[in-house]
Amino acid sequence: MTGGPSTSARSLARPQAARREALRARVRDAGLDGLLVTDLVNVRYLTGFTGSNGALLLAATDHDGDGASRFGTDGRYTTQAAAEVPDLPPVIERSTALALAARAPALGIRRLGFESDAVTVDAHAALAAAEGVTLVRAPGLVAQLRVIKDDVEVEALRWACAIADTALTDLVDAGGVRAGRTEREIALDLEFRMRALGADGPSFDSIVAVGPNSAIPHHTPTDAALRPGDLLKLDFGALVAGYHSDMTRTLVLGRAADWQRELYALVHGAQAAGCAAVEAGAPAAEVDAASREPITAAGRGPEFLHGLGHGVGLQIHEAPALSAASKDVLEAGMVITVEPGVYLAGRGGVRIEDTLVVPGSGPAETLTGFTKDLVEIG
Amino acid sequence: MTGGPSTSARSLARPQAARREALRARVRDAGLDGLLVTDLVNVRYLTGFTGSNGALLLAATDHDGDGASRFGTDGRYTTQAAAEVPDLPPVIERSTALALAARAPALGIRRLGFESDAVTVDAHAALAAAEGVTLVRAPGLVAQLRVIKDDVEVEALRWACAIADTALTDLVDAGGVRAGRTEREIALDLEFRMRALGADGPSFDSIVAVGPNSAIPHHTPTDAALRPGDLLKLDFGALVAGYHSDMTRTLVLGRAADWQRELYALVHGAQAAGCAAVEAGAPAAEVDAASREPITAAGRGPEFLHGLGHGVGLQIHEAPALSAASKDVLEAGMVITVEPGVYLAGRGGVRIEDTLVVPGSGPAETLTGFTKDLVEIG
Repeated sequence: MTGGPSTSARSLARPQAARREALRARVRDAGLDGLLVTDLVNVRYLTGFTGSNGALLLAATDHDGDGASRFGTDGRYTTQAAAEVPDLPPVIERSTALALAARAPALGIRRLGFESDAVTVDAHAALAAAEGVTLVRAPGLVAQLRVIKDDVEVEALRWACAIADTALTDLVDAGGVRAGRTEREIALDLEFRMRALGADGPSFDSIVAVGPNSAIPHHTPTDAALRPGDLLKLDFGALVAGYHSDMTRTLVLGRAADWQRELYALVHGAQAAGCAAVEAGAPAAEVDAASREPITAAGRGPEFLHGLGHGVGLQIHEAPALSAASKDVLEAGMVITVEPGVYLAGRGGVRIEDTLVVPGSGPAETLTGFTKDLVEIG
Repeated sequence: MTGGPSTSARSLARPQAARREALRARVRDAGLDGLLVTDLVNVRYLTGFTGSNGALLLAATDHDGDGASRFGTDGRYTTQAAAEVPDLPPVIERSTALALAARAPALGIRRLGFESDAVTVDAHAALAAAEGVTLVRAPGLVAQLRVIKDDVEVEALRWACAIADTALTDLVDAGGVRAGRTEREIALDLEFRMRALGADGPSFDSIVAVGPNSAIPHHTPTDAALRPGDLLKLDFGALVAGYHSDMTRTLVLGRAADWQRELYALVHGAQAAGCAAVEAGAPAAEVDAASREPITAAGRGPEFLHGLGHGVGLQIHEAPALSAASKDVLEAGMVITVEPGVYLAGRGGVRIEDTLVVPGSGPAETLTGFTKDLVEIG
């Protein structure tokens, strides 16, 4: 990668205040005076803070924006908090969450929601020491916001996907996919290239699977070596500014056998069908069905072992879920994966995965760009 | 690293059954019939399972070893569970923790402890659907066991530390520490070397700090380049089989200035004093004091900005804490870091960190071997 994101300065303005404002409406709708946010990923989303101890007391009822809201951390992060969270008054105390809860009544917050899907039973018991506050279970309020990505988030994901694309292209061009290389070596090469291109790291443990191992959906790289005629399945991504890219490609070393070519064409068609079904308003289960249908029609339904995809963002797996059982409905601005796979035990498997932005209208933007035509190497 | 650990086959026998037996005694002492272990690090420690969803129902009251204990996971991990947890009957269900809790009464477990320091409020509420069981808060029972490392754990830590040693030696020998290289480049080089030597990854985000940046205790690598006369602080480690190594060294590019030499000698002496105080029975606060004393005597006490050290194992930071406020007492078999540092804002800092095994008698074994003499490069 030469250069960084191409987005204008405007869309890269700090988005955290707008996110807090959107959350404030949801907190009010939930009948709460405020929300205590302690999940670190949510804290990062709402404040920009990247340290290991931080919390947000969001006041919902004041009509002064963030006037009664507070950011809490401990003394290790005084300087970092001032740099990363310049727009909220800091509370610096070791028992950060309790310190914020204790301040709530003075800020007009009586009914205080907490993230009951993240706070432990012991941490909840400790919060009870805060007087004058009623703690109310309030799971998922921030997660509901996070499913729709704003411009800054899409830009980070676009960049992370571009790094993964470039790393794979460079790996192939440099002869990095060759007989005798092990799964571990290929994974390390890919991850090294992503780091050198500016990634903070891989976005998850890379899946590199050769030959029959490609039939294991989530294979951990081993010392198994690539051999002529092998399928090579690569599922990997880059981490950029907290955002995770996710792409799968399946290549062949040498000329593909007929069964590999047929399997590839089946999954390639299914993946295209899934992508074509991605639009605002589509039930996620229907997108799953659109991609699954050609595989089922070919008698390979039982060998498509997983759901079609998932949301990606500050976590590698987040809402929505794309599967037969999903109740989610796609909305413009969601960023999702479409990744059908067919796995023939003992022989090999093909999975093809893209990351897409659900469009407001028109075709979806595909963030992962490496070719999906069958690549036969050497 | 050529070859692997040199430990005999005997000491590498599966240790999980012995760990469960030790836990069983603590569970009985707590007045419980059983413990539901859901923290994934604790599950790994007690069963060997490395997947992303697993739980252990440990029966305390039966006199049949693990006869009434169960391992739970979901359908994605059926094969992996059979391989990694061959010695416990599996329960394969999606709502894994609830499925185990629901089986407890039939296995003679009425008073069931749960890890209240790990279980969320919502997850606890979901467990209430299990009938015939009284859920009892039981935090920290596994953590209390984990502070004392068994032979298998010490061997993994020894190996992880050896990989970090070798990576740093090779980096220096290969000319990897030279003017113009950035902090990011040096961090990536170190991490790549550790991976190539067999590490599963770095054990935490590497700290590489040049020049004045070395005065920031937990500096994140930037594009700042190393210049002649700079201090270079490296705090990094390798991850091996789930175990984390941790070492800090501070080098100088070129000839050390007098102030750097004095600062280095001060910290070097303090680190040696800390290591010399490590013995079974020593209060952790006294070990901290032993290392802090020469720094305070030199008038640099306020510039030693953190505690002396911490336990390492399946987590990079775990019990015991070595600090002035710590109530912990060292015991034979604990594995801890000793890492004093003095940071002169705007000029530079020196930190020297080893990982040691607290001995039953005699001197402590130091797992990190890279020289602590002042290294002037080039």
